[in-house]
Amino acid sequence: MKLLRVGTAGAERPALLDAEGTLRDLSGIVTDVDGALLADPAALDRVRSAAASGELPVLVAEGLRVGPPVGRIGKVVCIGLNYHDHAAETGATPPAEPVIFFKAADTVVGPEDTVLVPRKSVKTDWEVELAIVIGHTARYLESDEEALAHVAGYAVSHDVSEREFQIERGGTWDKGKNCETFNPLGPWLVTPDEVPDPQALSLKLWVNGELKQDGTTAQQIFPVAEVVRYVSQFMTLYPGDVINTGTPAGVAMGQPEPKPYLRAGDVVELEIEGLGRQRQELKDA
Amino acid sequence: MKLLRVGTAGAERPALLDAEGTLRDLSGIVTDVDGALLADPAALDRVRSAAASGELPVLVAEGLRVGPPVGRIGKVVCIGLNYHDHAAETGATPPAEPVIFFKAADTVVGPEDTVLVPRKSVKTDWEVELAIVIGHTARYLESDEEALAHVAGYAVSHDVSEREFQIERGGTWDKGKNCETFNPLGPWLVTPDEVPDPQALSLKLWVNGELKQDGTTAQQIFPVAEVVRYVSQFMTLYPGDVINTGTPAGVAMGQPEPKPYLRAGDVVELEIEGLGRQRQELKDA
Repeated sequence: MKLLRVGTAGAERPALLDAEGTLRDLSGIVTDVDGALLADPAALDRVRSAAASGELPVLVAEGLRVGPPVGRIGKVVCIGLNYHDHAAETGATPPAEPVIFFKAADTVVGPEDTVLVPRKSVKTDWEVELAIVIGHTARYLESDEEALAHVAGYAVSHDVSEREFQIERGGTWDKGKNCETFNPLGPWLVTPDEVPDPQALSLKLWVNGELKQDGTTAQQIFPVAEVVRYVSQFMTLYPGDVINTGTPAGVAMGQPEPKPYLRAGDVVELEIEGLGRQRQELKDA
Repeated sequence: MKLLRVGTAGAERPALLDAEGTLRDLSGIVTDVDGALLADPAALDRVRSAAASGELPVLVAEGLRVGPPVGRIGKVVCIGLNYHDHAAETGATPPAEPVIFFKAADTVVGPEDTVLVPRKSVKTDWEVELAIVIGHTARYLESDEEALAHVAGYAVSHDVSEREFQIERGGTWDKGKNCETFNPLGPWLVTPDEVPDPQALSLKLWVNGELKQDGTTAQQIFPVAEVVRYVSQFMTLYPGDVINTGTPAGVAMGQPEPKPYLRAGDVVELEIEGLGRQRQELKDA
């Protein structure tokens, strides 16, 4: 299934994109697409049955804002330097174990919402990423199978990053990862049955129409199952939590000088195979 | 005012500790102590009037669990190495600007709740900290006065830290800061009118009755106002967000070998002048 949330920010309603590509209203079946729904197999079954019936009300997609596909996200865990080609372009040694940092859940916006270039930013950069959405509370998971059983689905995530704040301002990376609007997510939460192999997805990102990132999750140093298992050793993952699994090569930071960092007016588009497409215009904060 | 939340985890009711030290029920006046209340001057005035009337229902404190004093916390921002004496004991150079890292809001528990020693942890450490609770949305604040006007109050915070996870496992500090139960908060949210000088508070922490930390916020490298102003340059702070402002000297990591890291059965007590006292027993996760 492709679950989504549509409507004005903070007042989105649950919806579903059916097998024919028609947008259907789920608000008669469930209150939201959130951790509570994802952890509730009976509610998910009701959604699946309603979808199969073909009788869900049709929504007019035209002009309708798409929000993040998960509401009330608790936390966004991020994995750094998780692609062989990206680690190489940043000059970093591939990490021996996953690098973890955070984005605040309040940085999450819809896939076509405006992204704000922070004040005094000169190094705002892009990163297309595969996001994992957690479906069940996960503590100290022991195997890849157990890890994958805790995954509710996948989504496109844009891990917008300010490199000066991240690297040159002291302390940890979080300073450059948490500016307002820095995590467009969606359009859809795609359930695992429609993502048979999360390690065989192409990821692409364009800036002003020019292809900048063209990678595949096959290049991940730590694959999805390993990431979920690993993170659960250090913190408890709850339904509706999100893990951004890192970005492939092609970010601005990895390019020759003058590096083409983002400015107001730029348009970024992102796509992951089977998970949909994002488009953001940059504006000044 | 001293605001708090009492009752079982996830179902706390709002309460107030009055000037005579009597616990009073606020659930007839407000639904919760959370960002929505803190951002609403009219609602806070209703609470203040009700407190002054002396007519709020009395609650029997005996046997009542105290929860975190703020509900629905969005994010917990932490400042690292923010005391001259603590930076010295860890061998770090005092930072030129604040070091920022994160704790997930789901690590926040009540001031007397159990703290879990993570599996495979050998370096679980303590840190008494002054927490700032944000009252109004804060973006790009320009002055100390403006920063302090965005503070809803202060609380005792325990920034429990696993030093091996934090420092020796690759990546940023977050890996050692986000284990389940790693942020006891409270007992009270104390409004600024009762904290005339946040830079003149003594902070103490005991392990099994032995005084380990005995500091003062006068030793902060970056004081409260500067911390709020600074953080607001990199991220938007929302009502109900928490900032842990760093710990003074005396943590286990700073002591001679064998360093006295925490184990199941240990009891940690924390106190900040005017902000109340915490007590946690450690158990194995």
